[in-house]
Amino acid sequence: MSADQARRAWAYLSRVVEPPCAPLAAYVAAHGPVDAAARIRGGCEDAELTPLVEARREQDCAAADLAMLAGRGGRLITPDDDEWPLLAFVALAGDDVRKKERSAPPLVLWAIGPARLDEAAERSAALVGTRAATAYGEHVTGDLAAGLVEREAAVVSGGAYGIDGAAHRAALAADGTTVAVLAGGIDIPYPSGHSALLHRISSAGLLVTEYAPGIRPARHRFLTRNRLVAALSGATVVVEAGLRSGAASTASWARAMGRPVCAVPGPVTSSASAGCHQLLRQHGATLVTRAGEIVEIIGRMGEFADAPQHPQTLLDDLTADELRVHEAFPARGLRSAEQLALDAALPVSQILGPLAMLEVSGLVEKVDGRWRLIRR
Amino acid sequence: MSADQARRAWAYLSRVVEPPCAPLAAYVAAHGPVDAAARIRGGCEDAELTPLVEARREQDCAAADLAMLAGRGGRLITPDDDEWPLLAFVALAGDDVRKKERSAPPLVLWAIGPARLDEAAERSAALVGTRAATAYGEHVTGDLAAGLVEREAAVVSGGAYGIDGAAHRAALAADGTTVAVLAGGIDIPYPSGHSALLHRISSAGLLVTEYAPGIRPARHRFLTRNRLVAALSGATVVVEAGLRSGAASTASWARAMGRPVCAVPGPVTSSASAGCHQLLRQHGATLVTRAGEIVEIIGRMGEFADAPQHPQTLLDDLTADELRVHEAFPARGLRSAEQLALDAALPVSQILGPLAMLEVSGLVEKVDGRWRLIRR
Repeated sequence: MSADQARRAWAYLSRVVEPPCAPLAAYVAAHGPVDAAARIRGGCEDAELTPLVEARREQDCAAADLAMLAGRGGRLITPDDDEWPLLAFVALAGDDVRKKERSAPPLVLWAIGPARLDEAAERSAALVGTRAATAYGEHVTGDLAAGLVEREAAVVSGGAYGIDGAAHRAALAADGTTVAVLAGGIDIPYPSGHSALLHRISSAGLLVTEYAPGIRPARHRFLTRNRLVAALSGATVVVEAGLRSGAASTASWARAMGRPVCAVPGPVTSSASAGCHQLLRQHGATLVTRAGEIVEIIGRMGEFADAPQHPQTLLDDLTADELRVHEAFPARGLRSAEQLALDAALPVSQILGPLAMLEVSGLVEKVDGRWRLIRR
Repeated sequence: MSADQARRAWAYLSRVVEPPCAPLAAYVAAHGPVDAAARIRGGCEDAELTPLVEARREQDCAAADLAMLAGRGGRLITPDDDEWPLLAFVALAGDDVRKKERSAPPLVLWAIGPARLDEAAERSAALVGTRAATAYGEHVTGDLAAGLVEREAAVVSGGAYGIDGAAHRAALAADGTTVAVLAGGIDIPYPSGHSALLHRISSAGLLVTEYAPGIRPARHRFLTRNRLVAALSGATVVVEAGLRSGAASTASWARAMGRPVCAVPGPVTSSASAGCHQLLRQHGATLVTRAGEIVEIIGRMGEFADAPQHPQTLLDDLTADELRVHEAFPARGLRSAEQLALDAALPVSQILGPLAMLEVSGLVEKVDGRWRLIRR
C-alpha cells in the first residue's frame, strides 16, 4: 500500500461524514485508513457508522481534492504525520449529544502555509472575539498579537471579521506565525472580504481546516471549528465578545479541555466587552491586560510578565517618622519645629532627627530657624 | 456628671492624640471619658499614653469646638450614642507598625447632616477611585451611585475630586443618602473646589470625620480616613484607580476587615483602570459592572441582580436536527431535499421532519418542489 493510496483514503474519509465523527475514528483505528475507506465505499455493515456515511458514501473526489491542494502548495496532515499536533481532546460527559459528538478530535487536517502545525501549537494563544469589534477591541488585539509574536508565540484565530482579523493582521505585520482555523473547505475563502488576508496567511502562516474542499462554512461548523481553535492553543484569550458570542463557545471548549481561558476587560458601558466580563465574573477566566501575562500562562515554567511600572517618588524611601513629619508641613510657608511637632502629634524631641534627614534628602530646608518644603 | 460634660470630655480626647489611638481608647474604656480627660489634662502617668498626648495635652478647645459644631447643625457621635455604627475593625498582625496603629477604631466622630450614620452604614457601598478620573470613570460612577440609591443603599466616599465627587453628586441627584468621610476637621472643606458639594452633602447626607475641628488634611490622614470609608461600607468598589492609588489603600483596608472588595474593569489601555485590573488579577476583587451586582453583595440574602439580557433569536427554539438542516441552506437560492441532505450529512429520510417544522416556523419555504430560506 503506497503513501498516496493512504492519503487518498484519508481524503475520502474526511468527506464521507460530517466531522468530527467518533464512530468513524474508531472504525479507522480498527481497520486502518485504506481498508476503512474501501469497506465504507463498499457499503460497510456497522450499526453505528452506516447511517452516518449513507448520504456521502458514493462521493469520491479524493484524487481531485488532493490535486487541488497540491496545486495550492498545501498538504493533508494526518495522525500518521510528524506534523500532527498534540491535541487535548476530552470525552465530554453530559446531555448535549451534539456537543458530545463535536468533542471528538479531527480525523485529518487540510492545511496550506509554511508554518508547521505541531510547532505552532506548542507555543500559541488563541485571540478570539466578536466580529462586531470596537476600535478599542481591535487596538488591544493588535497589541496582544504583536506582543505574543515578539515572545515567539503563534497567534491562532478563526479568520473572521473583527477581533480574529485584527489578530491575524497584527501577527503577520510583526512577521510572526499565525494560524487561521477555517469552518469550511480550505478552497473557500470565508468571509469573502478576507480573501486577501487568508491568502497572506496561507503564504506566511497556516490555513487549516478539518473540512474537505468545497464544504461551505455553516453555523454548526463554526461551533465545531471553535473547539479546534481551543485545542490548538495553549490558552484562549477572548478580547471582546457580546453576551452571546462564538468566542464564548471557544472559551467553553478550552475550559472543557482543561486549557486556560483568559479575557480582556473593557468598558462596562460597551456591549462588546459584556461577554468578557461575564467570563471573568462567572466562569473563572483570568483577566489579562497585556501579552506578557498571556505568555506567563502558555510559556515555559518561570516565564513571567514584567512587573507593571509603579511610579516612584522621593517619599518612598522615607521612614514612618520622616513621612509623618514631612506630612506635617503645609504646602507653603515656614513652620517652627514646635509647630511641626504639634501638627505631627509627636514630641519635639522626636522630630529633630527626621527633620535633619528630610533636609539631607533635599525635601525641606531651614530658613531663619524655621522650616519649609522645597517645592518642585 | 452631665451629658454636656461627657461630650466636652470626648471632644477634648478627640484632639489630644492623632487618631486613631488604641492606648487612648483603652484608657477611656478603663476610666470613662470624663475621668480619662481630667487625668490626661493633669499629666497622666501611663507609660504608653503619656508620650502620645504630650504634644497636645494642654490644647483644650472642646467647648469652642462643640459650639462651632452646634452652630453648623452638627453633632458629636460617640460610642455612647445609638447612632454609633457597627464597625468591623480588626487588630492587624504584621510588621507595619503605622498600619497597625491606624487599624484601631475611631474614638468619636464629628458629623453634620440629616442622615443617621448607623442606618446609612447598614446598607451601603463605598465608591472610590482616582482623582484623575476619566470621563468613562465618572460616567460609570454616576450610573453605579444612581443604581445604589435606587436600591436604597447609601453611597460612601471621600469627598475628593474625580470618582469620589462623581459618586456623591450622582447620589445627591438621585435623592439618595451619601456619606463623605473627611481626612481633616469638619470645618475644613477639602478640597476647596468641593466646598459647595460638601455643603450640599452636609444638608442632604452626612459629613463625618474622626478629626477635631481645624485639623488639616494630610497624606497620612487620607490613608487613615480610607480605613473608615471601608469600615462604614458593606463593600468597597474601586471604579478607577492607577497602580498607585489611595483607592487601593481603601480596598486593602476592606480586605483586612473581611469586607468585600469590588473593582470595575475598564479599557486596558487606560492607566486609570490599571489599579482596578490589578485588584482583579492579584487580590481577588470581584468584578462588577452594574449596581445590581453590588447590591447582590451588600444586600439582604437572596437579593440578586437581574440577569443580563441575552439577545433571543427564532433559532433558539429549534431542535438539533432542525438547526442542522437550517444550516444546510445557502443564504439564497433553492435546494432540493436531496441536496440539503447531502450538505447536512443526514439521510434524506431524516431531514423531511425537520424541513416541515422549519416551514411551520416560517424560516423556510417550498417553491416548485424545492426549498429556500425566507430572508428577513
